[in-house]
Amino acid sequence: MAGSARRREYPGARPVLGLDIGGTKLAAGVITGDGVPHGVIVQPTRTAQGWPAVVERLFTMGREAVAAAGLGPVAAVGIACGGPLDAATGTLVAPPHLPGWRNVGIGRLAEDAFGVPAALQNDATAAALAEYRFGAGADASTMLYLTISTGIGGGAVVDGRLHLGAAGNAAEFGHVTVLRGGRRCSCGRSGCIEAYGSGTSIAERARERLVDFPGSALAEIDDVTAADVTRAAAAGDPLAGLVWGETVDLLGAAITDLVNVFEPDLVVLGGGVTRAGAMLLDPIREIVAAEAMPPAAAAAKIVLAGLGDHVGVVGAGAVAHEYARPGHHFAQQVTRV
Amino acid sequence: MAGSARRREYPGARPVLGLDIGGTKLAAGVITGDGVPHGVIVQPTRTAQGWPAVVERLFTMGREAVAAAGLGPVAAVGIACGGPLDAATGTLVAPPHLPGWRNVGIGRLAEDAFGVPAALQNDATAAALAEYRFGAGADASTMLYLTISTGIGGGAVVDGRLHLGAAGNAAEFGHVTVLRGGRRCSCGRSGCIEAYGSGTSIAERARERLVDFPGSALAEIDDVTAADVTRAAAAGDPLAGLVWGETVDLLGAAITDLVNVFEPDLVVLGGGVTRAGAMLLDPIREIVAAEAMPPAAAAAKIVLAGLGDHVGVVGAGAVAHEYARPGHHFAQQVTRV
Repeated sequence: MAGSARRREYPGARPVLGLDIGGTKLAAGVITGDGVPHGVIVQPTRTAQGWPAVVERLFTMGREAVAAAGLGPVAAVGIACGGPLDAATGTLVAPPHLPGWRNVGIGRLAEDAFGVPAALQNDATAAALAEYRFGAGADASTMLYLTISTGIGGGAVVDGRLHLGAAGNAAEFGHVTVLRGGRRCSCGRSGCIEAYGSGTSIAERARERLVDFPGSALAEIDDVTAADVTRAAAAGDPLAGLVWGETVDLLGAAITDLVNVFEPDLVVLGGGVTRAGAMLLDPIREIVAAEAMPPAAAAAKIVLAGLGDHVGVVGAGAVAHEYARPGHHFAQQVTRV
Repeated sequence: MAGSARRREYPGARPVLGLDIGGTKLAAGVITGDGVPHGVIVQPTRTAQGWPAVVERLFTMGREAVAAAGLGPVAAVGIACGGPLDAATGTLVAPPHLPGWRNVGIGRLAEDAFGVPAALQNDATAAALAEYRFGAGADASTMLYLTISTGIGGGAVVDGRLHLGAAGNAAEFGHVTVLRGGRRCSCGRSGCIEAYGSGTSIAERARERLVDFPGSALAEIDDVTAADVTRAAAAGDPLAGLVWGETVDLLGAAITDLVNVFEPDLVVLGGGVTRAGAMLLDPIREIVAAEAMPPAAAAAKIVLAGLGDHVGVVGAGAVAHEYARPGHHFAQQVTRV
């Protein structure tokens, strides 16, 4: 956590519970108005258990986190999860990372379980809010957050306000074109930046080209991951270097596009692929500086995320602080499948 | 003008003077708080006269518009011009469509000439504000405006507020990538949508391919324009059809990207190329409906601009209504070259 950065605290706010629902892990923690997580509990998601069992376990984790934090009852619950979701009704529509979760009314279930108001937002949006309030973005006015991970997600704070969009799913930064007609993307289009810059694509593209680079260090590895490609590229492996070079070039192009569109003060990069550090950040900064419109290039700082592994649960807590309202109740709309 | 649309008027506002500085024409008009232009005067820009003579003539046009409108003295002056510009200091930095205009302190010159506060904004931003307040966008909350003309410019209203960006040049929608490594763009990059979707590029690409289509109707024309290509495509000419098909496909891709990024209620298309009407609008709507993220695709209406040829001067007036403040004076910073 960027301890020295100015924070946009929620002054006088009572502690809230943050619940983060990922495809591989669940996290629960109590978040105070200064953005500090307390009593954080993390468990594997185990989606095979089916959503009712997973949600029940998540709520148990929530109760344990409240007990562990020792700060008394929480004022609200915030939930962060991958979209598509409907924030207005507190419903997970059909998150691709949670097979079988269709129209799960998680907001109402949480309100029933904890007896306090709840709020739901996209996980990348929640992370953007957390970085803006408490992390790398605490000095910014217009801030873009990109999570470069299994997929690519995003969140945008525009002139000091989180931009949610007409249906609450704005800032789909993974789904902007870099090569019309190029690689197939998870969204059904071709040539989106997610189809090149995501960890999934980095690993796939390296595996596809192994046949042309039989001497590559990656040929020794059974199931090449994006982290393997990053390491091998750093060590000078030609195949890995080729894939990495293409990756950072296209990520740089997409981020340049977003800088031209928003003219932000700050772009914050998070997610697993950013563990590559300077190998990722330096070329992206160079491309934006060289290619964005000059005033936008001069205005936009590009940094790595400040909140680290707890960004999910802190984001969920920030969602509760920002959006849960006393007396709020989601309507009865749980569709059991 | 979309007469039936709800308008976001400036209630009780005194009339202002709008001055629109284009590469080919100047316009001046008095704009009342309901967005209606009065006493509009239009003249060729004649950049060869040099900026001091052009600015003097523009101010004379302004005085004539005030007299013709017969609404008494104006409360402020708004100026719209292509960027890059510095809205904070009221300075035209180096607009590419106005050769030789470098660091012209037009804001201060206007304040001196008219004795009232002035405000300066990018012309596409001003047009976006005008469409949002008085035109096609009068029911929208998040609205994107694209002007598809000699180049491609844009403006964004995000959650009811014009988004200007860190240095006042946000919404450079012409400079988002559609084909990394593709055609050279005016901004120095390659593969931006402006390098394919602008009127300049439509005409250029048709001319480049004439050699392969000696029977094309365009081969009869001396200096093919984008309007020629549009007409010939409508008439079934194969070369024109090829160029037009590529144009609308890439414009559709870029607009899909912007819809994924902003999840707007509304996208408004203006500028000369939109005179093609349904030939442009229908395929763009189809691409966005098929390719954008489903909630964003469902939310975003795509329409043609509502204010027609007066959008420039109405936009300049809206800039005065929105940004000029009583008692404001730009600092002395005119650099004569």
